[in-house]
Amino acid sequence: MAGAPEWRFDPLTGRRVLISPDRADRPRRIGPICPFCEGHESETPPEVLAYRDHGSAPNGPGWRVRVVPNRYAAVRLDAGAPWTPPAPAIGPVPTPGLGVAEVILESPDHETHFCEVPHSLVIEVVTAWRERLRHWRTDGRLAFAQVFKNEGAGAGASVEHCHSQLIGIFFVPPAVAAEIERVGRGPCAYCRWLGTTRDGPCAVVESDLFIAVCPPAPRFPGETWVLPLAHASSFEDIEDPELNDLAVVLQDLLVRIRRAFSDPDYNLIIRSAPFRHDETWHWRIELLPRTTTPAGWEWGTGELINTMFPDQAAALLRAAG
Amino acid sequence: MAGAPEWRFDPLTGRRVLISPDRADRPRRIGPICPFCEGHESETPPEVLAYRDHGSAPNGPGWRVRVVPNRYAAVRLDAGAPWTPPAPAIGPVPTPGLGVAEVILESPDHETHFCEVPHSLVIEVVTAWRERLRHWRTDGRLAFAQVFKNEGAGAGASVEHCHSQLIGIFFVPPAVAAEIERVGRGPCAYCRWLGTTRDGPCAVVESDLFIAVCPPAPRFPGETWVLPLAHASSFEDIEDPELNDLAVVLQDLLVRIRRAFSDPDYNLIIRSAPFRHDETWHWRIELLPRTTTPAGWEWGTGELINTMFPDQAAALLRAAG
Repeated sequence: MAGAPEWRFDPLTGRRVLISPDRADRPRRIGPICPFCEGHESETPPEVLAYRDHGSAPNGPGWRVRVVPNRYAAVRLDAGAPWTPPAPAIGPVPTPGLGVAEVILESPDHETHFCEVPHSLVIEVVTAWRERLRHWRTDGRLAFAQVFKNEGAGAGASVEHCHSQLIGIFFVPPAVAAEIERVGRGPCAYCRWLGTTRDGPCAVVESDLFIAVCPPAPRFPGETWVLPLAHASSFEDIEDPELNDLAVVLQDLLVRIRRAFSDPDYNLIIRSAPFRHDETWHWRIELLPRTTTPAGWEWGTGELINTMFPDQAAALLRAAG
Repeated sequence: MAGAPEWRFDPLTGRRVLISPDRADRPRRIGPICPFCEGHESETPPEVLAYRDHGSAPNGPGWRVRVVPNRYAAVRLDAGAPWTPPAPAIGPVPTPGLGVAEVILESPDHETHFCEVPHSLVIEVVTAWRERLRHWRTDGRLAFAQVFKNEGAGAGASVEHCHSQLIGIFFVPPAVAAEIERVGRGPCAYCRWLGTTRDGPCAVVESDLFIAVCPPAPRFPGETWVLPLAHASSFEDIEDPELNDLAVVLQDLLVRIRRAFSDPDYNLIIRSAPFRHDETWHWRIELLPRTTTPAGWEWGTGELINTMFPDQAAALLRAAG
């Protein structure tokens, strides 16, 4: 253990960064010796959730989807002084990197592309995302958690075996808070937007319950969002009968992205409402193909450059069905 | 030409992205056939500045450092309607991607590491940065320009031959404006900060005129800033007698970064004051080794995770001298 994580604040730029030395110890596991494969359960911390074949014992083989604490956690519940809400403000004094970090192993076999994972497992993965978000919302200590997935080294993955992650922290990230404030209370701005977008040039594909669309200001060529057609603030409130439909749309979209953008590395991000939330929100899953590399201009100015209009990307994705 | 660049705005997230289809046509030139080598002048637009051997003709061989318009420009002066200040506000209506984009070729030979470019050329590169910023400040149409450098494909470079870029636009990026507002008028907060940092654990190396330090909230392991010890708002006001000293510090620091962080790809960013500026500012050069890959957590929340404290990075860089 290289040291407890801390948030560090730069009073000049106003920038806050989480410094997490343990993350540097992550082994880069690309290849046949994989800690996430069935039979290697001892290489991860004990599971906190698993969907298992009847009769199989915890932390042994026989699982289909498995959730474990992240061995190289960016944030930890024991990072500093005992947990004392209200959480400390993040300012000039270094703040303990309190939080949780979990890994969702998405297949017992060494799959590297989520779009190739068997459909029945995708349903169980989506279910595990829901269950872990529900768990931490009920726990009550965290203000915000995000489920996300990095596929491919170019998207930040250090292990190629299909997996996703959950990180939960004790404050709402300002970027998330700012979007909530923009959207405001009252009638849902996303519902209104979907009404006009649904039959427009940026729509990609639609099921009974979900729609995939390219957003108005995409950050990468091919950025696509999946949203529920009916209003819903929190991903973790998704009901059992909706899970199959979501898994179908998600996997269909990932296949389209793979075909249309030459099998790109990508990030998947669930943007759900913060846990203690009473404003309008409409959850979405963001898919960010890492088709370009933000460079000096973007890191210096905060201004992003994309090379493809969203209607062009949507046309490619529609044709890739 | 695939289409004029436009700023697109997402009224839901508040996000603005520059969509620049021409950028997608950039050839990836990694290898011996290089458009930036001496003798290939016809592969770039005509030069706007060059430091040349006596008697050599423009746009032919004989140059040492050469500045040309970017053939695959992210922004263009002819991107939309004729230039009519005051510039349009960026909002729901797509806004033309007005601006300038230039490339500074940093060596006639096929150098791929700026830290290996002969020192006399580094001085001329720094001079070219100054001259082009002075040119566009005097021009008066742009509000802001940034000089930056992407070294290595992992840092976003599409051509490996050493080069830097200038992009100028008609507004001050909100992230830059926010930092200016934080720092405020009156005594320079950076001068005050340097006073306490200079002899502290985050200082790396110092010359007569410049200092290299790791900032309080670094975004990547090894992020380092170079600042003038004496107060100065605008990089382009640097005087001739200071150029050699800056070139020495910059190249020394790049060698240290190469040694301490295993020859990383990196971005170099000049953070100078906006052109029409009457507030306090203190220019700096930021060096960002691309030692980690921002992934789903960072893209979803805007919160960065680093794996190394700034004093640890500074100790490595001091030892790498």
